[in-house]
Formats: sequence, structure tokens, C-alpha cells
Amino acid sequence: MLDKLIKTSDIDIFATAEIGIETAKREVWKVEPSSTAKNCRNFIREIVDTLDLQPNPEKPVIALSIGDPTVYGNLKPSPETVKAVIDIIEEGLCNGYAPSVGYESAREAVAEYLSYDGVNFRAQDIVLCSGCSSSLEICITALADGNEGHNILIPRPGFAIYRTLAESIGVQVKYYNLIPENNWEADLQHLEAQIDVKTTAIVLNNPSNPCGSNYSEEHLRNILDIAYRHRIPVIADEIYERLVFPGKKFISTSSLHSGVPILVCGGLAKRFLVPGWRLGWIAVHDEIGAFEHIRKSLVSLSQRTIGSNTLIQGAIASIIQNTPQSFHDELASTLALHAQIAFERLSNARGLTPFMPDSAMYMVYEINLRHFPQFENGLDMAKKMMEEESVFCLPGECFQIPGFMRIVLTVPQDLLEEACDRIVEFCNRHYIE
Amino acid sequence: MLDKLIKTSDIDIFATAEIGIETAKREVWKVEPSSTAKNCRNFIREIVDTLDLQPNPEKPVIALSIGDPTVYGNLKPSPETVKAVIDIIEEGLCNGYAPSVGYESAREAVAEYLSYDGVNFRAQDIVLCSGCSSSLEICITALADGNEGHNILIPRPGFAIYRTLAESIGVQVKYYNLIPENNWEADLQHLEAQIDVKTTAIVLNNPSNPCGSNYSEEHLRNILDIAYRHRIPVIADEIYERLVFPGKKFISTSSLHSGVPILVCGGLAKRFLVPGWRLGWIAVHDEIGAFEHIRKSLVSLSQRTIGSNTLIQGAIASIIQNTPQSFHDELASTLALHAQIAFERLSNARGLTPFMPDSAMYMVYEINLRHFPQFENGLDMAKKMMEEESVFCLPGECFQIPGFMRIVLTVPQDLLEEACDRIVEFCNRHYIE
Ligand SMILES: Cc1ncc(COP(=O)(O)O)c(C=O)c1O
Ligand SMILES: Cc1ncc(COP(=O)(O)O)c(C=O)c1O
Repeated sequence: MLDKLIKTSDIDIFATAEIGIETAKREVWKVEPSSTAKNCRNFIREIVDTLDLQPNPEKPVIALSIGDPTVYGNLKPSPETVKAVIDIIEEGLCNGYAPSVGYESAREAVAEYLSYDGVNFRAQDIVLCSGCSSSLEICITALADGNEGHNILIPRPGFAIYRTLAESIGVQVKYYNLIPENNWEADLQHLEAQIDVKTTAIVLNNPSNPCGSNYSEEHLRNILDIAYRHRIPVIADEIYERLVFPGKKFISTSSLHSGVPILVCGGLAKRFLVPGWRLGWIAVHDEIGAFEHIRKSLVSLSQRTIGSNTLIQGAIASIIQNTPQSFHDELASTLALHAQIAFERLSNARGLTPFMPDSAMYMVYEINLRHFPQFENGLDMAKKMMEEESVFCLPGECFQIPGFMRIVLTVPQDLLEEACDRIVEFCNRHYIE
Repeated sequence: MLDKLIKTSDIDIFATAEIGIETAKREVWKVEPSSTAKNCRNFIREIVDTLDLQPNPEKPVIALSIGDPTVYGNLKPSPETVKAVIDIIEEGLCNGYAPSVGYESAREAVAEYLSYDGVNFRAQDIVLCSGCSSSLEICITALADGNEGHNILIPRPGFAIYRTLAESIGVQVKYYNLIPENNWEADLQHLEAQIDVKTTAIVLNNPSNPCGSNYSEEHLRNILDIAYRHRIPVIADEIYERLVFPGKKFISTSSLHSGVPILVCGGLAKRFLVPGWRLGWIAVHDEIGAFEHIRKSLVSLSQRTIGSNTLIQGAIASIIQNTPQSFHDELASTLALHAQIAFERLSNARGLTPFMPDSAMYMVYEINLRHFPQFENGLDMAKKMMEEESVFCLPGECFQIPGFMRIVLTVPQDLLEEACDRIVEFCNRHYIE
């Protein structure tokens, strides 16, 4: 498990080759990477690497850090999803190149899938990409220009890849704060204050990683109003679209008809439990024709790497249409149950405040570090928790909020309970009044 | 077929949405794409679009333009390839995130696959990517920096994506000429003359698209010697690696132990006939430790989009190991036979000189335009050939060599014969002494 923990995409290892021969030449010939390569940083890995994690050998490791719902094998794609891909392979008609934006039929299926609550996407609004990360890369690259000194606004706390993608192409990021006590809503004043003449996009992530928040229509409208007033397009990362707990309702930014042009990013990864399949999309929502040129850019940029795997593209209509609602409902129920369990247990820990999510796959808790003076900071506390309890939570530093930690809710219930109990013991043991 | 012709990745259509509402706002709000987006051009499409192709309605279209071996259904992946993926899906263990550089086992399999003729790759030398295009993108991005005024050398004629990838990130390309009469070997003097202090990579494509040439050890050594003298790393696009006609031998650049650090790009697309699966790789060949920093850059850059489809990664060891040699031999024989047929037939056309390939999937012929004064240029001739004969060859302009055309050899034999005969008739009809 530690092995797995270290090898996930977040926290990736690639041993540098041992080198030794021809030392003379080596001194004169070291190839320097480009600035893009040098500025392309994996912040989560950089942080986790400094921790030199050593679990307690007496206790099996429980990794609450990995944003991959499939890691423990308890959550699997629907049989319909699996069958759809097998059918396509056996048919043998989807082995060749697709258009770089995807098969027309696959784009049609995604357009239909995203058309609800008064939204109407058509196939030509959809660009299929190699995972949602690739969708985000294309959107940020299309809208922001490092050479022009552009910046984009991104949420704090938020998913680290926005910064990775932006900074590697020389685009600056500016954070807008989310307010924990307020269901992690954006601090609107703070958000608006970040905007300057060089701001070319606002990234909105709803439901949120790491917060598990699901914004109200009113809050989304408030954000879109700001975007509209300043004429700044929105990149809506909706990879957790409709992945909300029972009784909650997901509101898509596109359904609000705000007049703001929006690039909606999503994919199969989370809701269909197949992150490795790398099927993402961009859906262009633009009621005012502001994205006329951007649409062309999305096509051009997709041609750099010629899109995503054609087997999944060929299967996507069946995957979407045949996976029964009960599959989605069960996943949501499981996540809600796990959230309830984690929330209740962690509420017993002294010096720790969990925030109840209502969507996605994560829960964030705050640590009152005043009561843990023996730990230098949250990073140190996460490290010690691993050393003593073999439980690893991602420190808030990975999401730009020191003093918090994120756990994933997708681990099996018994492991989640065990992990939470160990966290509680750890906190109560170290808590100082 | 025309439909297919227009919809391939080369020649891609993405209708711009009709827009009409809120015209007032639209006037004040047009989102401008970044320079990367604007500089990201699809040269083949730009050229083909100007032609406004209209086939002869009396004759079925035969597209000799599409570099996708699977288009006509006559060339299929091996049953072992198909079975390997089905097994992986059914097993259900490859749905989650892989490390962004790929599963260790998959990298191991690719390393083994590429280790022959005295070359020894290890798993840690391999980065799996979403197709060879993505491999090339990562390599060019790692080695060349637009902000530093860097340039890279690319072959003329050559595959258009090198220029697309480089120019979109502000990197200049400089062409080195290939000599048709000399088995399309590089003009070494010309190559060396292109090098300046800002040159950070030489792209070498062997076997070549569009030429179908397979370089001798001596010629490869000559190129590597130049790279070594000037301390310029090589990007070796070996996507057609070992796809050589019977009796020919492919020499990998890595096997020459030249002391030049080389990023070898390849993938499953061509030799395994599954271009849509988007499984490519970078193999780092570096005997002198010059790529110490570049290795890290490749990892960082792979993390931007988190690699390639995990089902194919999971299957790749079986695909590589279980596909019998006879499969590769048959493909090579078919291509050699098709090359022979095309060469013989086209030799009967007046004013046209075919160049016999010995590898890959293409043949280039030269047009003696002096004998076709009624056509403005090669583009015009390709257009008229489509209008009269419903045969479309890619004009040399798509590969930076006007006056030539490229045909693909992967179409079924009867169609190839029919197409060549039509080309011959067309040329002989229009030839003027
Ligand atoms: C908010 C958010 N956006 C995007 C992604 C990336 O999705 P994909 O795996 O499809 O690239 C993730 C993955 O964890 C995420 O949490
Ligand atoms: C020379 C060359 N390199 C790279 C590629 C791209 O390969 P892939 O489909 O794996 O991206 C092609 C495809 O035609 C090619 O001809």
C-alpha cells in the first residue's frame, strides 16, 4: 500500500538513471530544460517528498491521500461500462484515428449527457480530450498568454493542477479565497479584488476538490455576475458534476444563462469510476458568441496530440446511456455514508474540526495547531500521524491551506472507520489544552 | 469515403456554432486566443481546405491521402492485441490512475521491446505518452524554449506536426533538406549549415513519413556525428521503427552508441495498427548523463495530463510479446507488395517520377510540372485529379516539397491498382511534350 501511495499520479517516481561513463564529456554537455519544463512543478509531490514518510511497521498503512476512487477495489465501474468497451474492441471498428476533437457520435453523446436543466449542448460544442487534465490544459492555454503577462484566478483551497498548468506556460495564478465556514463559498469581495486588466479567466471548481462543497444557484450567480461585469470568461471544472450526495442538487454553471462564456471541463473519471481511461471533455457554453475564436483554438490545440483513446470514445455513448441511475445513486449514497461516518468519528477528536461535504469524494478538516505545539506545522503533524498511526492525510499545504488536511471518502468503510479512529486517538493523545 | 477523407485527424472539421443572440454584448466581448493557440496551426488542413475538393460523381473516391492504416479495414491489429485488451478490461484492475509516466510493468515491457542490437533500455528510461504526437510534444517542449529564441532542425520533406508543435510554443523551425535521388538522405552540409547557437534539437525521422526511406548505419552515423560535434541532442522519431520491407534492416539511432543523447519517440500506432489507441512512448538514450535534468523534465511534463489510457498500458506487455513475428512480416510484405505495384504502375505515367520506398507506409512521386502547364502548381494538379479521377494524393506542399505528392500504401490492393491507373490516365491525358 505504501508502494501504491507513492506511485499514484500525484506522487510519482521516476528514478534518474545511474550515470557514470564518459565523465569528461558529461562535464561539457548537460542539456538544460526549457523554462516550461522547469516551471512545470508537481506541488503535491514536492510537499509529500519532503516528508520522508515512514509508516508504523506495526500497523497496516491506510492511505487517505489518494484521489483515485479505484485504489482499494471497492468501487468499480458499472458492468455496462465494461461491456461497452469490450463490445467496441470486438467490433474492431474503432482502432484508427478519430478526428482530434473526437468522433462525432461520441461528441453527440456527451452533448446529450450534459444537456439538462435547460442547457442545450450540441456535438459541435464538445471537444474530447485525454482526461479532464488535458481539457484544463487546453482551456488555460487557449485563454491565457504568458508572454502577455496574463493571469488566471484559481480557488484557494483548490486542485494543484491549475497552478501547474498555468505556471508552466508562464501564466501567473492569483488565488481567491474560499470560506470554510460558509460551505466553502468563494469570498466574493476577495475574488473581485483579484481581477486586474491582465486577468483572462476565472477557474471555478464545483463540486470542489478538496472541499466537497456543492454551490447554490445563488452563489454561482454571484460569481458569474462578477465574471460578467469584468468580461472575464470562466473555466468551470465540473469533473464532479452530479456527483452530489442524496437530496442535494448539482447546478451547472451553464444552466444559469448568465451571458458569461464558459468552458466546462469534465470527464468520465469520477462519476463512472474510470480515471485511468483518460476520457475528458470541454463543453463550450457561449450564448453571446464571445468564444468564436476560442472555439477554433480548442480545435487547433487538440490537434497537437490528436485526442483521446478511440475505444473509450466508441464506447462512451453506451457507457453514458446504459449505466443505470441506480449505479450513480449507489455511489452517491456510499460517499454520503462515508462522509457521515468520518464526520461523526472525527468530531470526537480534540483540536480538530471536520467540515461536512455534500458532494465529490473528499472531506477537509481543520487542525487547531495551538493545541498541538509539539508539531511544527500541519506537514509535521501529517508526517507524525503516518509514523505513529500509519494513516496518511494530504496536508492542506497541497491545496494552499495550511492548517487543514484532506481525506478521501472512497476507501472501504472498515478502513475508513479504522483510519478515523486512529486519527482520533492520535489527536487526543497529542492534544494539549 | 469523402466524408471519411475530410474527417480524419489531418483534416478535421469542427463547425463553429451559429450565433445570433445578444448581438450587442457580442460586439463588446470577443475573447482573444493566446499566441500559443493562434500559432498552433494544422498545415495540412490549411492547404487541403483551400482546394475545395470536389470528386467526380461518376467515380468512387479513393483517398490516397490518409495516414491511417486502418481506414479501409484491410489491415487489422493481431488477434493477440485485441485479446490482450479484452483480458485487461475483464480483469478490472487497470481502471485507476497510473503513474503519469506509465505503469512500471508497461514501461518494463516497452524497454524490453526496444532493447536489441546492443541497446539496453530499462523501465526508468521509458515515459509512456498519449500517442507519439504527445511524445514529440513533450520532447520538443522540454528541449526548446520559445522565450530564449531557440530553434529546432526538422527534415524537409517531413511530418507537419513538428512545426505545429514547435511554432505553437514560439520555437522556430529550421529545415534541413532530404535528397530524393539519394534515398532521401539528409543533405549533411545543409543540415550542418542550419545549426546556430540557438539550435537545441535535431529531429530525425527514420523510417520517414512521407519518404518511406530507411537510413543506412553510415548515414545515421554521419548525422549523429554532426549532432555530437555541435552538442545538440537528437529527437529520433522512430514511430515506423522496424516497419521495413522484407530484406531491409532497421537501424535504431540508439544502437550506434554515438555519445549523443537521444530522445527516441515511438508507439503502437503503426506497427501494431492501432493509431486510435493513443499509446506512445519516449525512450531516453543517454550514455553520457547529458539528460540528467531532461529526465526530470519529461516526468514533470507528463504530469500535466497524466499519461495514456491504462487499459492499453495494462495490455501492452501481452500485445508486444504475444503478437507473432508473422504478423509483422505479413504487414511488411503487404506494404512492400503495394509499393512495388504502385511503383510499377506509376512508372507508366508521363511526367511523373515515383521514388521506391523501403519502409513505412508511403510513397512519394515527383511531378514534372513543366509538362503540365495547364496546372498552376502541384496543389492545382491534386485538385484537378480529384475532380476528374476522384483520387486524392496529398500535395507535397503539406510536407514542404512542392512539386511532389505522397500516396499511402495501406489501401487495399485493388483500390491501389485502380487509383494508380487513374493517376496514370490523368497524367498521360494532360501531359504536354
Ligand atoms: C478538481 C479536479 N479536476 C480535474 C481532475 C483531473 O481529472 P482527470 O483524471 O480526468 O484528468 C481532478 C482529479 O482528481 C480533480 O480533482
Ligand atoms: C513521422 C510520424 N511521427 C509521429 C506520428 C504520430 O503518431 P501517433 O498517432 O502515435 O501520435 C505520425 C503519424 O502519422 C508520423 O507519421
